[in-house]
Formats: sequence, C-alpha cells, structure tokens
Amino acid sequence: MKSTTEYLWMHVPERRAFVNITPEVERVVQASGVREGLVLVNAMHISASVFINDDERGLHHDYDEWLEKLAPHAPTSRYRHNDTGEDNADAHLKRQVMGREVVVAVTKGALDFGPWEQIFYGEFDGRRRKRVLVKVIGE
Amino acid sequence: MKSTTEYLWMHVPERRAFVNITPEVERVVQASGVREGLVLVNAMHISASVFINDDERGLHHDYDEWLEKLAPHAPTSRYRHNDTGEDNADAHLKRQVMGREVVVAVTKGALDFGPWEQIFYGEFDGRRRKRVLVKVIGE
Amino acid sequence: MKSTTEYLWMHVPERRAFVNITPEVERVVQASGVREGLVLVNAMHISASVFINDDERGLHHDYDEWLEKLAPHAPTSRYRHNDTGEDNADAHLKRQVMGREVVVAVTKGALDFGPWEQIFYGEFDGRRRKRVLVKVIGE
Repeated sequence: MKSTTEYLWMHVPERRAFVNITPEVERVVQASGVREGLVLVNAMHISASVFINDDERGLHHDYDEWLEKLAPHAPTSRYRHNDTGEDNADAHLKRQVMGREVVVAVTKGALDFGPWEQIFYGEFDGRRRKRVLVKVIGE
Repeated sequence: MKSTTEYLWMHVPERRAFVNITPEVERVVQASGVREGLVLVNAMHISASVFINDDERGLHHDYDEWLEKLAPHAPTSRYRHNDTGEDNADAHLKRQVMGREVVVAVTKGALDFGPWEQIFYGEFDGRRRKRVLVKVIGE
Repeated sequence: MKSTTEYLWMHVPERRAFVNITPEVERVVQASGVREGLVLVNAMHISASVFINDDERGLHHDYDEWLEKLAPHAPTSRYRHNDTGEDNADAHLKRQVMGREVVVAVTKGALDFGPWEQIFYGEFDGRRRKRVLVKVIGE
C-alpha cells in the first residue's frame, strides 16, 4: 500500500469565501503514484469545510445567503460559545451543514469524478491561515 | 490491496425521491472479494446525495417536507444559480444537508452495519440519468 | 495492509448529549499498529452522529439549541415517522445535519488532527445502548 500526505495552506482575507482546491488535490494524487485507492481531503480547522459541488458563482452566493439564514452571524450574543471571547459560533454551525471532509475515489491514477464535481474549501471565519489535509492511500 | 470500482445508473422519474441501493452495494462488496476494508459510495452528481438512514416511508416523507422547508424549490427566482437557466438551486442546497457520500466498513466480507442502517440514493433534481460510484478497497 | 475493527458501546442517560470519544479512537489506532492509513468512525444507529468539532461546553449548548430549532422534537405528531409508534423522527433529521461518520488520516501512528479537532458522539435519542464502529486500515 502506498500513501502520501500533504497539507495545503489557506488564507482567506474575508470572513467567508469558497475556494476551488481541485487542482491542488489532483497534483497530490498524481505525485502519490496511486492508481487505485482513496483520497481524503479535510479541513483541519473546525470553523471551515471541505465539500464537493459546482464551481458556479451564483450558487456560491446562494450558499452564503442560505447558511447565513440557517445560522446567522449576528447578534453574536445569541451564542454561548461567544461568551469565551470568540465571535465565530456561527462558523462552527455553518461548517456542520457543509461538512468537514470528502473522500474521493482514485481510479486509473485520477480523481474519479462526475461531470461537475469540484472540491471546495469553505471558509466561515477567515482572515488567518488554516490548513487542509490531503491523504492518498492505495496502490 | 484489492480494489473494485462500479457505477450504478439511477433514473428517478420524479424530481425528488429516495431509493434504497443497499442490495447493489452488497453485491459489489461480495464481488470484490474484499474481506476487510472500506467501501465508498458517492453521488457523482451535485444535486443528489448518498446517505444512510432508515427504510421507513413515513421518515422519507418527513425528510422531503423538512428539506423543502429548509431550502424551498420555489420561487426559483430567489436563487442566483437559477439565473443560469437552471431551476435546481434548491437541489444543490438539499444535497449538502443530506451529504454526498458514505464510507462503510467491510468486515468479514460484508457491510458492517448496525441494526437499521440502509444506504439511500437521494435525488433532488431527477427526471434524467445519473450515476453513483461504489469503490471497495481492502484485502 | 493491516486492519482493526472495534465497537464502542455508548449509553447516554439523557435524550440528547455530546460525548468526546477521541481517547477511545486514539487507543484503537495505537493498538492497530497502523502508521499510515485511515480510520473510519461511525454511529451504527440512525438517530445518532459522529462528528468533529470543538470540545467547548458553550458550543455544545449552541448546537443543541440550533438543532432543536431546525428540527424540533415536539409536537411529535408533526412527523409521519412517529405514526409508527416512535417519538424520535426529529433525531433522524438532526443526525443528518451533524453527519453519520468521520474519516480521519492516520499519520506516523497518530490521528492527524488540527489544533482543536476532537471526535464526538452525538446522541439525539438516548436512554439506551448504542454502538460506534472504529475501523483502521493502512500499514
């Protein structure tokens, strides 16, 4: 069994944004030499997500509005977590809707994707450096 | 390490439905010859889900009503994604709540399931053919 | 390829609670002897979750309130699933928001975690024994 582990550094200057990381994951898969296996891609921080969906600007706007409605940032005093001095409780909620990780099949040395699948980093409390883990296992 | 990859074709004639795909996944696991490992089952389309829950008609009705309340289909004009000519923005939102994929343990050659676990394909924008990927790795 | 499978028994005396199971998962990973691989941790019951987030009491309070708002327990008659004699339809909905499983990288023999990542069992219909599956594969 082969395995490769890499860490991608993310730095989103805004509080919230979606970043397409598919090319970075493809690069790690190719460098791993794995032909058949799985790749795990996960946010290493608990106020961020990794998820798969469409690379379409309108949809990302819809996600942002929808998540803000499901788990509003303000008033920050509505969340007990923010009594610790943080103001990011909403980010911990939004991340649960969008998910922490994806597991993707590697087949014939490439990401085995449907026609529109793209991997995104979802940042819900940015303005600082965070990491994404990419781990490939297989043969 | 052994691996097997299969693609299940789904064709839901309605816009939304839940389809139990456990028997198909069991078949792929048995055909793989893997005794100890993992199986990944994921929707290859971004307006559909694969998830694990109960095969109970009432619950599926509840899921459908609940998802429609969290992310209503209409008015379609409320979503920017639909400015592209689509009317399925809600499907991309519903899919994030229910998830893209499941990873299931394969133990002694079978799906290692609790008493009520069943694997479902969740369609949120049907009336066309879509695929589900099943990949088994292990020994 | 090595693999190890263990089942953790959970018994939450309340209807809902979050339990940190990171030490148990670490113990299984160490016992497995796997240095590079993946560990799957999943609820084997469909009204419970396994997820990764912060071990902070205020945040857990926020999760509980938020989930109760997204998918209220009462009136139980609002859910068709409860026509079967159950009163736990809301638990099946809450579990979808929080997720069934996590897949975590094992690197150099340990859980490859960011600074605040902890693994939780989320119980939404407790007062009885349930199981969590932990499966490690790798080399």
